[in-house]
Amino acid sequence: MTRISVFIASTIDNFIASADGSLQWLLDAAGDGEDYGYDRFLATVDALAMGRGTYDHIAHLDPLPFGGRPVYVFTHRPPEPRDGVVFWQLAPRQAAEHWEATGHERVYLDGGRVISDFLAAGLVDDLLLTKVPLLLGDGLPLFHRVPVATPLRLLGVEPFPSGLVNLSYAVSR
Amino acid sequence: MTRISVFIASTIDNFIASADGSLQWLLDAAGDGEDYGYDRFLATVDALAMGRGTYDHIAHLDPLPFGGRPVYVFTHRPPEPRDGVVFWQLAPRQAAEHWEATGHERVYLDGGRVISDFLAAGLVDDLLLTKVPLLLGDGLPLFHRVPVATPLRLLGVEPFPSGLVNLSYAVSR
Repeated sequence: MTRISVFIASTIDNFIASADGSLQWLLDAAGDGEDYGYDRFLATVDALAMGRGTYDHIAHLDPLPFGGRPVYVFTHRPPEPRDGVVFWQLAPRQAAEHWEATGHERVYLDGGRVISDFLAAGLVDDLLLTKVPLLLGDGLPLFHRVPVATPLRLLGVEPFPSGLVNLSYAVSR
Repeated sequence: MTRISVFIASTIDNFIASADGSLQWLLDAAGDGEDYGYDRFLATVDALAMGRGTYDHIAHLDPLPFGGRPVYVFTHRPPEPRDGVVFWQLAPRQAAEHWEATGHERVYLDGGRVISDFLAAGLVDDLLLTKVPLLLGDGLPLFHRVPVATPLRLLGVEPFPSGLVNLSYAVSR
């Protein structure tokens, strides 16, 4: 099966953006030239998948900064077609089946809503969580409430001089 | 001023109990004889403070397992008086002033609602967060939404063989 992987930065209270969608706190905390393992991770994935909110944050970039990898955007209101981007509204299980049939070995899942939907479907294989030393108090959540518990296995912990910490987990099956 | 410190275990999605109040997942994950720094931490505090929900979990214990340290319980519905336990409904600022006047050097703050109220008041000095390798999906939250951001400074990271990780932060003033 296609491996489905999360790599996302969040505050200690698990927000991925301020309530107004801003990522300024992340730029302030992590804009030090360190990439927190991003390039190394990106090199291992065939494709990216994200929700519409995440896509809209990067849609102005041309080309998209993913080395030509296909991007799947979950949305109920598809914009104009764009080369290399698939706008769809598949359920997680259907999407995973499509990726498997396409031959993707590893898909990078981004965005709180999409990650939570895939967790609810039992379809996430591993998570690399970059924890920013900040309690934001309010904002857009990384984890939405879902009726499914997911046991994890700690793969590694990597603190950085900036105070950010990478926590790496595999989902226990 | 009295130092006000948090030490609490939570899942990766920041739940401190299941939706029904159960801590079985914590016992399953952390019931290995390791104390995750608890005794060392407890030795540094003069008093404990918690909400009514947290207190009700331990109220049946006699004596309370805190070495005779005074316990402050924030509640609007005080039960029968109990030696060594103060039931009150002070605001965080008033409580901190009381502790300062009492001469407490360090108070151990426990329970999601109380921790969040003290964060909202800017009155937390440090947090030791024990992260359990589990996404619970739903439950009682560690961090309630508050209108205040709290910048943190990473003090240390300690992974344990069980897969739990202690993250230690001081609040940046």
